[in-house]
Amino acid sequence: MPQKILIALGGNALLTSKEKGTAEQQLAHVHESCRHLVEIVKAGHSIAITHGNGPQVGDILLKNEMARDKFPPMPLDICGAETQGMIGYMIQRSMDNRLKSCGMNIPVVTVFTQAMVDADDPAFKNPTKPIGPYYTAKQAQLLQKDEGWHMVEEPAKGYRRVVPSPEPQAIIEQNSIKKLFDEGAIVIACGGGGVPVIQRKDGTLQGVEAVIDKDHTAAVFAKTIGADVLLILTAVDHVAINYGRPDQKDLDKISIEQTKKYLAQGQFPKGNMGPKIESAARFVEGGGGKAIIASLAQAKDALDGRSGTTICSS
Amino acid sequence: MPQKILIALGGNALLTSKEKGTAEQQLAHVHESCRHLVEIVKAGHSIAITHGNGPQVGDILLKNEMARDKFPPMPLDICGAETQGMIGYMIQRSMDNRLKSCGMNIPVVTVFTQAMVDADDPAFKNPTKPIGPYYTAKQAQLLQKDEGWHMVEEPAKGYRRVVPSPEPQAIIEQNSIKKLFDEGAIVIACGGGGVPVIQRKDGTLQGVEAVIDKDHTAAVFAKTIGADVLLILTAVDHVAINYGRPDQKDLDKISIEQTKKYLAQGQFPKGNMGPKIESAARFVEGGGGKAIIASLAQAKDALDGRSGTTICSS
Repeated sequence: MPQKILIALGGNALLTSKEKGTAEQQLAHVHESCRHLVEIVKAGHSIAITHGNGPQVGDILLKNEMARDKFPPMPLDICGAETQGMIGYMIQRSMDNRLKSCGMNIPVVTVFTQAMVDADDPAFKNPTKPIGPYYTAKQAQLLQKDEGWHMVEEPAKGYRRVVPSPEPQAIIEQNSIKKLFDEGAIVIACGGGGVPVIQRKDGTLQGVEAVIDKDHTAAVFAKTIGADVLLILTAVDHVAINYGRPDQKDLDKISIEQTKKYLAQGQFPKGNMGPKIESAARFVEGGGGKAIIASLAQAKDALDGRSGTTICSS
Repeated sequence: MPQKILIALGGNALLTSKEKGTAEQQLAHVHESCRHLVEIVKAGHSIAITHGNGPQVGDILLKNEMARDKFPPMPLDICGAETQGMIGYMIQRSMDNRLKSCGMNIPVVTVFTQAMVDADDPAFKNPTKPIGPYYTAKQAQLLQKDEGWHMVEEPAKGYRRVVPSPEPQAIIEQNSIKKLFDEGAIVIACGGGGVPVIQRKDGTLQGVEAVIDKDHTAAVFAKTIGADVLLILTAVDHVAINYGRPDQKDLDKISIEQTKKYLAQGQFPKGNMGPKIESAARFVEGGGGKAIIASLAQAKDALDGRSGTTICSS
């Protein structure tokens, strides 16, 4: 049965942590990722794609910092917009080429995306997401004073800026994205979780210096296009409970109820598996069929029920 | 009569040459530009927008250079993709906000764009477009050797990289762009002339280190959406012949025939008015109604025939 699938690519689709991040390295990973994604398209499914931008926005922020004396650094929302163009291009061209190599002529298109967040989101009072380079105590003090940044100390590493990570409420470009998807295009959107914007009282939008979790936006994106499946691809084959302990257990299939129980137990680390599970649960609870968390290499097998962890309503 | 209009924004829509290029400065210019563009929308016309990226890609290239020891610089195609996200975001949000302030609810969407160029374009044998920062003679020598860059000396300023400026043949994302435009969206696309790609023998695409003139791509974009008018906005109110001489003459309306005559006379400087006139002529010759070159501030007046220079078939 052909399905509509929103695929969220994790950081490993673009880079591994040991690499410098040259264009060649990133393109090689993207190429490999697209090889797996095209298998899903070949099976007759309609896909849309989203992706993270952590290392790429980190590079831009560091370059901004190194050039601070010559150029005033760009705010975070604009840096995020830059990464959408950059990563979207790499994925789009790779997908396009892989599809053509397989004899398929399907349009691939990257749509720049803003995600609406609530100006009253409690995250704005409690910035927790570290971004950009490490600073010395003295630099951190200056940035806190001059730029109003929130800085936190990471033991043995230095000081780092933290920004709010609010929840995405809606995708501003949702109608355009849905239109292109419904017409048969593979749409790449919501990169890096989308550029966060708040709505002013007069209805106009304002960019904010925050970072939205890309998996959280993926759940909204999936709902927007009426996806049957939210497929979150990462570096591991399965979600596990009791992770790293002798009684670690890989999960094949879990219900919403079980998922919530595990979340309440604190089974999944906040910066990593946690948001993926939350997004999966939200998508399914919102009436969205099923969510699957799987490894990139086994994406197609996971869709066919032979790998990954499936989260469904019961 | 409602018309379909492709608007090409010049550099002055984003920055003036005396500015540092902070986000605030750029957004202020974009905001002002959008005020003029929305007047055109208010008159009932359907518009699509393209824009240059010279100063922005220049900033990214300079930052790349300053960080070269830590990060391998990104190739030019990827830097161009970055600017499409960055500038698209600024224009899109400003347009959206200005429209809302005027009580209009029209979707604005930025589509990442690649422009196909011919691998055999003679420009590849003769790189002429200077990009990025100035280098010393020694640095230039090293870059020529290590990176294979073409470097030229600019007297009293130093050495600069030059890249090919091939002609755009087609827009890869043309179907998606046309669909969104036909459905009523204001589409922002082909930023910086589009990221140049060539087609390999197997049909797949490859990014190239080149810069496409944004006005040349604007003519292709205008044709793609079936525009009635190609409106090229710049810093001057009219095209002039004998520019800067006592017998300078502003032009209100010129035919294709006259336009070609002036081009052959070398009336228009290559890096500036030349490509605008060429693009206008190509658009009109290709059966595209009329082209207008005008100042941003008089965009609406120019459309109504009260300012600017109109190029038409006869």
